[in-house]
Amino acid sequence: MELNLDFDRHARRGYAEAVYCESKTPEQCQHAARQWAERARRVGDDSALGTLLFTRADDTHARAVLAELPDALHDPVARMLAWPPTPPEPTGGRVLVVCAGTSDLPVAREAAMTARHLGRRVETLNDVGVAGLHRILARREALETADVIVVVAGMEGALVPVVAGLVKAPVVAVPTSVGYGATFGGVTALLSMLSSCAPGVGVVNIDNGYGAGHLAAQIAAVGALSGGAND
Amino acid sequence: MELNLDFDRHARRGYAEAVYCESKTPEQCQHAARQWAERARRVGDDSALGTLLFTRADDTHARAVLAELPDALHDPVARMLAWPPTPPEPTGGRVLVVCAGTSDLPVAREAAMTARHLGRRVETLNDVGVAGLHRILARREALETADVIVVVAGMEGALVPVVAGLVKAPVVAVPTSVGYGATFGGVTALLSMLSSCAPGVGVVNIDNGYGAGHLAAQIAAVGALSGGAND
Amino acid sequence: MELNLDFDRHARRGYAEAVYCESKTPEQCQHAARQWAERARRVGDDSALGTLLFTRADDTHARAVLAELPDALHDPVARMLAWPPTPPEPTGGRVLVVCAGTSDLPVAREAAMTARHLGRRVETLNDVGVAGLHRILARREALETADVIVVVAGMEGALVPVVAGLVKAPVVAVPTSVGYGATFGGVTALLSMLSSCAPGVGVVNIDNGYGAGHLAAQIAAVGALSGGAND
Amino acid sequence: MELNLDFDRHARRGYAEAVYCESKTPEQCQHAARQWAERARRVGDDSALGTLLFTRADDTHARAVLAELPDALHDPVARMLAWPPTPPEPTGGRVLVVCAGTSDLPVAREAAMTARHLGRRVETLNDVGVAGLHRILARREALETADVIVVVAGMEGALVPVVAGLVKAPVVAVPTSVGYGATFGGVTALLSMLSSCAPGVGVVNIDNGYGAGHLAAQIAAVGALSGGAND
Amino acid sequence: MELNLDFDRHARRGYAEAVYCESKTPEQCQHAARQWAERARRVGDDSALGTLLFTRADDTHARAVLAELPDALHDPVARMLAWPPTPPEPTGGRVLVVCAGTSDLPVAREAAMTARHLGRRVETLNDVGVAGLHRILARREALETADVIVVVAGMEGALVPVVAGLVKAPVVAVPTSVGYGATFGGVTALLSMLSSCAPGVGVVNIDNGYGAGHLAAQIAAVGALSGGAND
Amino acid sequence: MELNLDFDRHARRGYAEAVYCESKTPEQCQHAARQWAERARRVGDDSALGTLLFTRADDTHARAVLAELPDALHDPVARMLAWPPTPPEPTGGRVLVVCAGTSDLPVAREAAMTARHLGRRVETLNDVGVAGLHRILARREALETADVIVVVAGMEGALVPVVAGLVKAPVVAVPTSVGYGATFGGVTALLSMLSSCAPGVGVVNIDNGYGAGHLAAQIAAVGALSGGAND
Amino acid sequence: MELNLDFDRHARRGYAEAVYCESKTPEQCQHAARQWAERARRVGDDSALGTLLFTRADDTHARAVLAELPDALHDPVARMLAWPPTPPEPTGGRVLVVCAGTSDLPVAREAAMTARHLGRRVETLNDVGVAGLHRILARREALETADVIVVVAGMEGALVPVVAGLVKAPVVAVPTSVGYGATFGGVTALLSMLSSCAPGVGVVNIDNGYGAGHLAAQIAAVGALSGGAND
Amino acid sequence: MELNLDFDRHARRGYAEAVYCESKTPEQCQHAARQWAERARRVGDDSALGTLLFTRADDTHARAVLAELPDALHDPVARMLAWPPTPPEPTGGRVLVVCAGTSDLPVAREAAMTARHLGRRVETLNDVGVAGLHRILARREALETADVIVVVAGMEGALVPVVAGLVKAPVVAVPTSVGYGATFGGVTALLSMLSSCAPGVGVVNIDNGYGAGHLAAQIAAVGALSGGAND
Repeated sequence: MELNLDFDRHARRGYAEAVYCESKTPEQCQHAARQWAERARRVGDDSALGTLLFTRADDTHARAVLAELPDALHDPVARMLAWPPTPPEPTGGRVLVVCAGTSDLPVAREAAMTARHLGRRVETLNDVGVAGLHRILARREALETADVIVVVAGMEGALVPVVAGLVKAPVVAVPTSVGYGATFGGVTALLSMLSSCAPGVGVVNIDNGYGAGHLAAQIAAVGALSGGAND
Repeated sequence: MELNLDFDRHARRGYAEAVYCESKTPEQCQHAARQWAERARRVGDDSALGTLLFTRADDTHARAVLAELPDALHDPVARMLAWPPTPPEPTGGRVLVVCAGTSDLPVAREAAMTARHLGRRVETLNDVGVAGLHRILARREALETADVIVVVAGMEGALVPVVAGLVKAPVVAVPTSVGYGATFGGVTALLSMLSSCAPGVGVVNIDNGYGAGHLAAQIAAVGALSGGAND
Repeated sequence: MELNLDFDRHARRGYAEAVYCESKTPEQCQHAARQWAERARRVGDDSALGTLLFTRADDTHARAVLAELPDALHDPVARMLAWPPTPPEPTGGRVLVVCAGTSDLPVAREAAMTARHLGRRVETLNDVGVAGLHRILARREALETADVIVVVAGMEGALVPVVAGLVKAPVVAVPTSVGYGATFGGVTALLSMLSSCAPGVGVVNIDNGYGAGHLAAQIAAVGALSGGAND
Repeated sequence: MELNLDFDRHARRGYAEAVYCESKTPEQCQHAARQWAERARRVGDDSALGTLLFTRADDTHARAVLAELPDALHDPVARMLAWPPTPPEPTGGRVLVVCAGTSDLPVAREAAMTARHLGRRVETLNDVGVAGLHRILARREALETADVIVVVAGMEGALVPVVAGLVKAPVVAVPTSVGYGATFGGVTALLSMLSSCAPGVGVVNIDNGYGAGHLAAQIAAVGALSGGAND
Repeated sequence: MELNLDFDRHARRGYAEAVYCESKTPEQCQHAARQWAERARRVGDDSALGTLLFTRADDTHARAVLAELPDALHDPVARMLAWPPTPPEPTGGRVLVVCAGTSDLPVAREAAMTARHLGRRVETLNDVGVAGLHRILARREALETADVIVVVAGMEGALVPVVAGLVKAPVVAVPTSVGYGATFGGVTALLSMLSSCAPGVGVVNIDNGYGAGHLAAQIAAVGALSGGAND
Repeated sequence: MELNLDFDRHARRGYAEAVYCESKTPEQCQHAARQWAERARRVGDDSALGTLLFTRADDTHARAVLAELPDALHDPVARMLAWPPTPPEPTGGRVLVVCAGTSDLPVAREAAMTARHLGRRVETLNDVGVAGLHRILARREALETADVIVVVAGMEGALVPVVAGLVKAPVVAVPTSVGYGATFGGVTALLSMLSSCAPGVGVVNIDNGYGAGHLAAQIAAVGALSGGAND
Repeated sequence: MELNLDFDRHARRGYAEAVYCESKTPEQCQHAARQWAERARRVGDDSALGTLLFTRADDTHARAVLAELPDALHDPVARMLAWPPTPPEPTGGRVLVVCAGTSDLPVAREAAMTARHLGRRVETLNDVGVAGLHRILARREALETADVIVVVAGMEGALVPVVAGLVKAPVVAVPTSVGYGATFGGVTALLSMLSSCAPGVGVVNIDNGYGAGHLAAQIAAVGALSGGAND
Repeated sequence: MELNLDFDRHARRGYAEAVYCESKTPEQCQHAARQWAERARRVGDDSALGTLLFTRADDTHARAVLAELPDALHDPVARMLAWPPTPPEPTGGRVLVVCAGTSDLPVAREAAMTARHLGRRVETLNDVGVAGLHRILARREALETADVIVVVAGMEGALVPVVAGLVKAPVVAVPTSVGYGATFGGVTALLSMLSSCAPGVGVVNIDNGYGAGHLAAQIAAVGALSGGAND
């Protein structure tokens, strides 16, 4: 098997590689888990290479990975595994993950789990879509005290400009494929978020909870980790 | 010249034909104006055929029409002409035209002028986009007392689900071509409005202020004009 | 489980929330049913919160909801459930649901059931596509006496401008995903309806019978419910 | 100049080549005219090579062609030139060109002029869009006696299934770029015509009056020209 | 069950209705078969209403139809049924169905069966794609003697301009969904055929063998059926 | 004139409103400038409301704004004006704006000017596209010491994953409309950036230098401004 | 069965036909295998017609082909069969197949197997995506000594301009459908490769490993096979 | 001015950088010309850095470049400049540029001029579109003796599979934006070429004559330049 894992990524970027399982066979995922485990053991410290994440893992992927790394943490809703299973002690700013509807939960959970295992403090807020605007307006304090906000929404994605217009913090917007017809599998939410009338929004790919959590973790580390940038 | 105007439309539908000028020559528009004037004179009553509207009229179209109908009302911002120039006495419910930004004003004005000349009472509300949410929330009374609300917005069009989620009245949504890049000339706003998480929204074509005003006029006439529908 | 139902919607908008089942698990739907039932019981009146609708419910969703609300009305063709099961006494104007072909029936039925359970009188007209124009022309009386007409059509959606051109009433247009190839899952019908040469058309999302029925119910309530709007 | 005209086309197909001017320089068009004239003179009979058509010719193209072929027929509305200027004696069946609105006239005229100069009898019917359905229904006799019908329409193109559903004759459908927003420069009409619920429709490119006239001329020649096909 | 079959179509258009099965339930198809059979029996002549075709019928649709019309002709490759099973005595011109590759056969067969059961003489030519150009060039006689040619091709659809450029007869082009990636389920072939550099092409929807056969049957009837059009 | 400026934005979000000039008339821009100046004077401090930016201003817009605010800073390459003209004393982290090619400079400049006038230290790096990879690799130190990196690129946008894969800092990606054909006015770069194989990328709209600079300013403020988030 | 194989292709083009299995039935594939075997036997030399390839063969296709050609080589990862099973003795230049990620392996393998069985020397390089740029930079010698390089990549396809910018050799780019959301099944990688800022790239269809291998084999034969072209 | 020319490209890739003028100001182009001239003079040999090409240069760009490099070769049809003006002595194989129609000439000329100035022997063949197939079939000898063939075509691009199916040599396909309506500015030709049923085709961007000429020059150099690859 010809895998060429980027073991250097944690040293180079501060965050380890993740294995995107969806277009890989369970065997390929298991093979990656084994290579990682071997390398980590050679270094003699499970977390020396950072936390390894497996994303978009269905049950067969999960079983294959757990065969190699039995103590890995598996969240079937987020379709993820993390190893080592315990998130690092949180540093940097606070990440708030806001989710428009129940259908968007798996993506929101993927974002939250990613940011947490990359070392940030994470809070969540669910089912606060703009069709019942009082729900999000009731949570202004949570919004105003976060260092970075991840907004997860499908359909027309209108929660993004509404949140971005209320806060100082940067917003990471994640369109989801929730909806039908003219939502075009998330394309409408994606375009809507890119066209947000409120500035301060960075958009990631449709359903890309992992990418959103990763970016939020990096943003929340600004100042904290880069050291004396602001002196 | 081979025009075949639908003189029967006012009798059949309650609203007269409109001449869409953009893809016509000024000569064709003038010719239509002349035919209409002649027919109206034969009937002996300027408003017997209803109000004739010219839409998307640039200056050359306007001059050509005014040559035939010198007393027509011309609004260059709305790019419209109306004849007879005075709107009919208003009947039916109240139409509220809400506009997200200054750039959307021409379309909002086209909607308002159309509804007014088709016989409805019309109010307007401008520059209340969701990037500064307090602006629309401050106008809830106006929103709650309207019989039908026309929402005009470009970019991501998020004003539509926000308004629809607050009111009992049906919402007519008009996407505008305001924006650039991923707004795709209004397509993003169009798709966003069609995907509104709040129900109660009927969408018209991009920049179609005329269509929105026409539909709003028809909606505001329900009950009032159809007579004993609800007894 | 983290649901955040919009119990306030009936008070605010006059129509209760609906649960869109397609992207939810049966457990999430059942959970929503339970929360609703509990809240209604606390208020002591099943219809105090309005009628709760479940849309796009397949058999597993339906079973989960019925486990909580055994007397809910379930229409498998419309893929809906309603609770309380009996529609309210109808008020407002008359809704006519017109359907181009047999393949469009599920969507038409969803529209009709929605409008009926939101409190309107509803009639239906099926299989009257323009390929055999005499079928729709034979029903002009039904068309002319309706207060609002919902037109449901797939393929090229030409029934919409034909109907809109014949009547005074506003038309709610619902494109369906019926067809193949260049119909693009309803996109062609959607664009065609948005481009209708006859004004007076408000379009909803592809296959969105629920949205059409909701909007039609609101339109038919104009005048009747808003009180003295037309005096 | 390196032109390589298909002089053989009239012998091979029964119809001569046409020069599409829009993406050519006036010099290139003039050069083509000269080569054609020289070849025709060598043969000693202006019509030996068939009728040469220039399509999409603006004024500068027209002047360049007329410098070479001063007696060519120039129709600025159809943006065409024909040489020899007199159409051949008509043979084959009758072509009817039906046009939805005044804005579609240039394309309809291109179709009619093409079919006429390729040797067919041509009639036209203008401004009969479905928004006022009585207009087309009043012309059923003309529709029923044509051998082939060209339907030219922009916006939603609904005239096509309406006409096709009424007649025995094949229909050639020409979408036009008339409209704005969701008409997408004729794409909506194109898709709508391809999705026609009434069979019997062959579609050509947007604004392609020439192609429609050519195809109609070929269809109307079936039986007449192919000789004893049906014996 | 609420079917509204267009029994009048054979009298009006010369060709009976077809039932598009794909988006109907087997029950709906069986119901249509029963209504048709009853009506035909009442008239006392199986072919009085013309030939009823069922298109896009899978095995369950076929069984349901055959339960009602046990002598119907069923071609599982063409996914069609015809009743009465014997095609009418052929009249009019000759239809040639040309097919680019083996993968396009089901659509080609649908076209051929449709034209044959609508009363035309039909010949076929298979596997003559342009990648091996000698294959189509070897069949020029068949091409030159046909009255109308149906060209069925997927991928880039280049067979269409090649054939159209060689013949006098009109070409009906049918794009198929054969291919992957940038063929976009037939869209590329569709656009390619609409953009054919050779005139004389009428295009139908992707995979629409039925529509192509219907149109070809109508074209081949020109002259033969319309009577003295060419005198 | 009916402007409704969001004067509250600086207090609420920390950054003042910007006026997007492209779809406004010069008069509307001038009017906005006057309202702002009046309000600022009433408060008695030019910078009390934050820095007002005018974006996408052509020469006529600029002249209109300068008529009201003669000391505003005008950068014609960035198509922007800023008032007050002097950027605030920089706080927070460092922003690095990286630009793939000379053609992308106007957008890069808009991003840099925005971030600078919103209070950040900004550096730039130009003409470092991946076709000559040594150019970007030679600047790794600049990349590694920035707190947030804005990458501006047209065509295929490959600079984004290359940069993101090298650094710890979050990347704000700005696709530009530079290119032709299959670049589709920036859509290809947009999609490419959204699909980046390297995580840590937040994307803004095509050519949206303003949005990128705003987001970068917010990100670079994390830690510095939000106070004790990381203690 | 009506197959019309292009037996002449090897003589004409130097490479035999391939059978694209995906849209064919196993029976059709088996029939093609049989015809080929018979023809080859008649000629008396298995390789006289060149190597027959079957592409996109799933297990049922493979079994059907092996029933006819039991010694055919079957690679289930590449989804291909080749007969005769042994590749010809390599001639011409060297082909290097470079693959961005593990998920792209099946397509890369299809390209490599095709080029090898068409007679070229082939090497491969896997898992060298730009997110960890050191991986590709470490292989510059392999890149610089290849005569033609096939680059296989999904997602944003940025490996293509990076490789093309480093080498003298022509690059054949193969976008893959790996990814989700805004990768649009390979469309983003396709457009990105077509828009490459580094010249020297020829693009083939999404997932078209066969086409890439074929083109690379032809390119690597230039000079070697065409004889004295460069003298 | 901040230009960062890739002077190293000729040494690294064998071909110098080209300046794409379309989105640059004349000043930027002139600046690039000056930097290049200065560097070349410093090296003391005009061709030491290879040939500098300017592409997509309109008249103002050309004047600006010629002010710096007065002896540069300027071809206004190809919209290019080359310096030094004399192409290098040709090496490697022969490039044949084939052009479907007169309207495609500018792109064909850009391809030919590029390949010639990158050091290859180039021949051309014009106006050989498939609508008159005899034209290309008459030139089979030229096709069969070329080492690489560039095919330039707009509309449906069918010339590509026709040529590729006839020859051993690799084909570089260039779609052009010639056409209207459903040709979508070259997209249809692009997709058609990517979907070619004949293998052996590498596609470049729409209207990208430069890219095609560059790739063809690289392909024709295989064997000749890479030295002993085929021994």
